[in-house]
Amino acid sequence: MSTYSIGIDVGGTNTDIGLVRDDGVCVAKRNLPTNKYYDADIYVSDIYDQIKLLMLENKVDAIDGIGIAAPVGNYYTGCIENASNLNFKGIVNLKELFKGHIDVPVVVSNDANAAAYGELIYGGARGMKHFIMFTLGTGVGSGVVVDGKLVLGKTGGAGELGHAILIPEGRQCGCGNKGCLETYTSATGIRRTALEMMAHTPTYSGALSKIAPEELTSKMVGDAAKYGDSLAIEVFEKTGYLLGVAMANAVTFSGPEAIFLMGGPVKAGDVLLNPLRRSFEDHLCFIFKGSVDIRVSELPDNDAAILGAAALTKA
Amino acid sequence: MSTYSIGIDVGGTNTDIGLVRDDGVCVAKRNLPTNKYYDADIYVSDIYDQIKLLMLENKVDAIDGIGIAAPVGNYYTGCIENASNLNFKGIVNLKELFKGHIDVPVVVSNDANAAAYGELIYGGARGMKHFIMFTLGTGVGSGVVVDGKLVLGKTGGAGELGHAILIPEGRQCGCGNKGCLETYTSATGIRRTALEMMAHTPTYSGALSKIAPEELTSKMVGDAAKYGDSLAIEVFEKTGYLLGVAMANAVTFSGPEAIFLMGGPVKAGDVLLNPLRRSFEDHLCFIFKGSVDIRVSELPDNDAAILGAAALTKA
Repeated sequence: MSTYSIGIDVGGTNTDIGLVRDDGVCVAKRNLPTNKYYDADIYVSDIYDQIKLLMLENKVDAIDGIGIAAPVGNYYTGCIENASNLNFKGIVNLKELFKGHIDVPVVVSNDANAAAYGELIYGGARGMKHFIMFTLGTGVGSGVVVDGKLVLGKTGGAGELGHAILIPEGRQCGCGNKGCLETYTSATGIRRTALEMMAHTPTYSGALSKIAPEELTSKMVGDAAKYGDSLAIEVFEKTGYLLGVAMANAVTFSGPEAIFLMGGPVKAGDVLLNPLRRSFEDHLCFIFKGSVDIRVSELPDNDAAILGAAALTKA
Repeated sequence: MSTYSIGIDVGGTNTDIGLVRDDGVCVAKRNLPTNKYYDADIYVSDIYDQIKLLMLENKVDAIDGIGIAAPVGNYYTGCIENASNLNFKGIVNLKELFKGHIDVPVVVSNDANAAAYGELIYGGARGMKHFIMFTLGTGVGSGVVVDGKLVLGKTGGAGELGHAILIPEGRQCGCGNKGCLETYTSATGIRRTALEMMAHTPTYSGALSKIAPEELTSKMVGDAAKYGDSLAIEVFEKTGYLLGVAMANAVTFSGPEAIFLMGGPVKAGDVLLNPLRRSFEDHLCFIFKGSVDIRVSELPDNDAAILGAAALTKA
């Protein structure tokens, strides 16, 4: 008989709540508008109602646990801590709040760590002991699995490779440092690279030069590259090159079996993956050469975050 | 009653063999000339004779185990694999060879991983769950401890942060890549920086300008810096700056409690440590700021390698 767990993806705008079967299928989901809530008690109470509805509608009597992926979610404490994009200020103890409603294990973690667990339990990393997940989005997140377990570190904040410095004194990052990986290889970073290259190529008159900088997205750059736009291709060459260096560096740390990646910019496909794989193999320390695969997440796009959250309960 | 183990440090020139008491004191040691041996059977047999002598002379009836720190020593297999600085070619299975002589656990690892274990069992990292050891010597080695265990990775070769790329397309490294950390912050790297700075400062006529490049060592640069030589101080400013960036990057990976360092260049003292700590705190990702100590190894210099090797038996 199948067992079930709940995966909750807390985003700044929406909260997705999914009922996940143990074979990794999200059988049903519901959502709530996160940004409409200012009181964490009511927020959790409303989520719990959605969980009950999901269970009733799908004739599920019991769940194994609740996994929650949230911005700055802390695995050790079960709290969301000072999330800049949520209305709940300070420290919100989700684990404690859920205890008032239901007596099952509640596990909280940040998005990228949840994504790594999702890949481990339901995705392409099943059976692996050592791998690293990179999530490319507005920023760059990462989750590191060593000996089958997530690396959490002293405070639960480990696996922040998006803020490893790739280019000392390079691009200004929102975190206050300069040259962090995410300033180059996030969706935002790709957009910056495109604008930078246009500034340095005044003769360029391709598709991207018709779009106002404010409206330019990494997806547009990806689409342009697929249609053969030489500047857009160059943007992804640079992005892949730098991401390849960062991934080769990550390998020197944990010597993994594979590196996974997910997120919007990955949809650019080979235009990103080809230069990335080339740079990765070029820069990989010789003792690891040929032994580490770069792979795209096998989780279905629409449910990846919910599956990642649900996977936390299997940790 | 005290218990004892054996720590063996396999160097290219000498092999040091120490009898280590469980409180971390190396009570006696002996050595053999590694480079005189071409046959691994005879080498191990002679080491075993030295172990017997150490035990007899010190009235020790039994040992808990034998730990061996060796170039490219593999924890998983118990082998030395194609060591470039030893006469034994190919793969030498030390674990198997010792089995022919004595029935105790034999554990093999590379030098930097052994150093990390030494710190964990006998040194300043006692009781820590998460820390990183950097060893600065001819190269830069590292050992990473997560959840109280060494990170070994898929093949046993993890923890090679000396070959993480700090400056893309930077200095040529012996490994084939460019810009690896060790090209800047090893003893060899410090020497290179001094030569580079002299090339760029033709007016410099200080102590280092009197030394033939072939004879220049990082120790001389360190001594000059201690005596106030401005160029030498500048060399360590740069070295500390870059090592600080690399250590801040390492923190994003495993979120450790502390970073330890040992090795020749560390003896330069504050002239290295001050700029290092400054750069480290500057570049540390904000979520870790103020939470990670940089500490010098607490193992006694002369016995550090033997203690590290012996500590492997407590893993």
